[in-house]
Amino acid sequence: MSDPRLTPLAAALPDTVPFVGPETQERRAGGAFRARLGANELTFGPSPKAIAAIKRAAHDVWKYPDPEYFDLKQALASHLSCDPVHIVTGAGIDGLLGSTVRLLVAPGDAVVTSDGAYPTFNYHVTGYGGTLHKVPYAGNHEDLDALLDKAVETRAKLIYLSNPDNPMGSWHTSSDISAFIDRIPDTCVLVLDEAYAECSDADTTPPLQPDHPNVIRFRTFSKAYGMAGARIGYAIGPQSLIGAFGKVRNHFGVSRISAAGAIAALADTDHLNDVLKKIAQSVDRIFEIARANDLAPLPTATNFVTIDCGRDGDFARAVLQSLGERGVFIRMPGAAPLDRCIRVTCGPDDAMNVFAQALPVALETARTKK
Amino acid sequence: MSDPRLTPLAAALPDTVPFVGPETQERRAGGAFRARLGANELTFGPSPKAIAAIKRAAHDVWKYPDPEYFDLKQALASHLSCDPVHIVTGAGIDGLLGSTVRLLVAPGDAVVTSDGAYPTFNYHVTGYGGTLHKVPYAGNHEDLDALLDKAVETRAKLIYLSNPDNPMGSWHTSSDISAFIDRIPDTCVLVLDEAYAECSDADTTPPLQPDHPNVIRFRTFSKAYGMAGARIGYAIGPQSLIGAFGKVRNHFGVSRISAAGAIAALADTDHLNDVLKKIAQSVDRIFEIARANDLAPLPTATNFVTIDCGRDGDFARAVLQSLGERGVFIRMPGAAPLDRCIRVTCGPDDAMNVFAQALPVALETARTKK
Repeated sequence: MSDPRLTPLAAALPDTVPFVGPETQERRAGGAFRARLGANELTFGPSPKAIAAIKRAAHDVWKYPDPEYFDLKQALASHLSCDPVHIVTGAGIDGLLGSTVRLLVAPGDAVVTSDGAYPTFNYHVTGYGGTLHKVPYAGNHEDLDALLDKAVETRAKLIYLSNPDNPMGSWHTSSDISAFIDRIPDTCVLVLDEAYAECSDADTTPPLQPDHPNVIRFRTFSKAYGMAGARIGYAIGPQSLIGAFGKVRNHFGVSRISAAGAIAALADTDHLNDVLKKIAQSVDRIFEIARANDLAPLPTATNFVTIDCGRDGDFARAVLQSLGERGVFIRMPGAAPLDRCIRVTCGPDDAMNVFAQALPVALETARTKK
Repeated sequence: MSDPRLTPLAAALPDTVPFVGPETQERRAGGAFRARLGANELTFGPSPKAIAAIKRAAHDVWKYPDPEYFDLKQALASHLSCDPVHIVTGAGIDGLLGSTVRLLVAPGDAVVTSDGAYPTFNYHVTGYGGTLHKVPYAGNHEDLDALLDKAVETRAKLIYLSNPDNPMGSWHTSSDISAFIDRIPDTCVLVLDEAYAECSDADTTPPLQPDHPNVIRFRTFSKAYGMAGARIGYAIGPQSLIGAFGKVRNHFGVSRISAAGAIAALADTDHLNDVLKKIAQSVDRIFEIARANDLAPLPTATNFVTIDCGRDGDFARAVLQSLGERGVFIRMPGAAPLDRCIRVTCGPDDAMNVFAQALPVALETARTKK
């Protein structure tokens, strides 16, 4: 089946994909999920002002986007109080991670991440021929010391860290991250995935130092801003690195409608504050539901709650499957021992009610399977 | 300025970008263009049904897109009467060209194109370390025999051909293209860029043979469908090659709003027919304007007219610059001898009037410069 003309690198890549979408599952099952709580989308929806901006921009869809995404970068620069030369936009953090790996990882170069961390980052590293080195989580946290030790040992070009963490919801404090950044070797770049940075008031995000040569930070409009479907994220880093994206990026790769929506979303701080309240309420609700079923919800600084199901991966997978059969779309960590958990996205009351109803049945089903 | 940690390939890449956007020129000039006729956008606008679909989809922007883009691929498969396994969608033809090169061109591999053909394709070939071999146009047409001879001589992995051609507007007939396809060496793939396929009734497009192992065809919603801002294109090819895109593509890389708009645009054949009439009328008008100024418009099967200004590249560049200073955004071919021409996108009457008014002044300015 593999085309004989593929490059040796492409021919060697696996056919696996980072994520199967809920739509694929719905097509297989022949029906729609009743609660879409698996992809850490903002189920509460984006700012109405963002929706209005998208609708206005629809009339200009015949125009190519500005390949500099000047207005959006200006808005971000103002929001972040940094110079726009430190910012690059792209088709979600996913697209930007791909370009980052392409710029910095030659075939055979070492890259360090945590076992169970973001699969799409791993997909890109493998895709460009890098060699992944994974260190275990320390409990429910990514292990900063182990990441650093492994990077030194392997002379890694990149370290991946998500803070707050996906899939566990845990976080390191801003001062711990700052101290970690200061210890990154000069030859290495920290890929700091802050997709969930805006989802809580927890102290997770150290001050920007956009000139710092050893860190590139990733943010998105897919989570707290509720625009996952628009595919728009951005990276913040030193000019020497951010400027290099211009050598490889798809210059017109982000929809102009998405860019217009993002600018409006960024400006609506009232809506973001409202979202934070809704996330906090839903976190409380998920905690209640988990505890009512004798499960252990983990503290979170994100828009999801990871729930320790108290047994092994097979058990949690059975719970997940049974929830799916009951119309609840959720996901779970992919690597042991994290895979003893399931991961539930915050959502409005109706979705929470569906989950609350389905969970005890799913647990019972999973238990009788064993 | 270059970051010392870039891969050797990335460090060697130039800082040039394929295209400077009109917005960049507007920011430099401190004012907006009066006629936007440079990027071969559909200035008449997309189907109102596509705009309505975009507005409806805005409310679901909190959801990630379906990474399979199943509904769009089904619609395309039905439209093309082929199996969806032969179709892959991406962030414009640009994004798909990047993935194609990545899959098939290893560093040092030969790639053949025409001197003056699509710069973004060249950008991707250079970006993945391929070696470009350019053959001259034969007059105003891409030279099929020369492309083939050069591909055999260099054992090329890819041949790039746009038909209808950008930037010249010329075309080869469907039977000539079919005969060309049959002569492509087995080790080579023809990258057949059909971005303008739907823009005229000219006989340019051979029947699809989606199983043909030596050709991959590229189509877009950016031209006749009027959705350049949405960033959505697709490729049609053999399953062995189309399937391989799953190994490297940004799975969630296209906005779900764009996908919704594209499905509606594809279904509105009445609007497409209306667009074809408007393009034909505007082509006639550009011919009139060119001839009234003693210039030679070239026959076209696209939504633009390339005008031979009758002198050298310096003269045409002076005309283009002077048009720009008069509020008319156009572009021109980048390589001699094609650069004796300017390229004017079809547009509504008001834009044509601005162009008609500015052209004689721009020509006079350019002539007195010499």
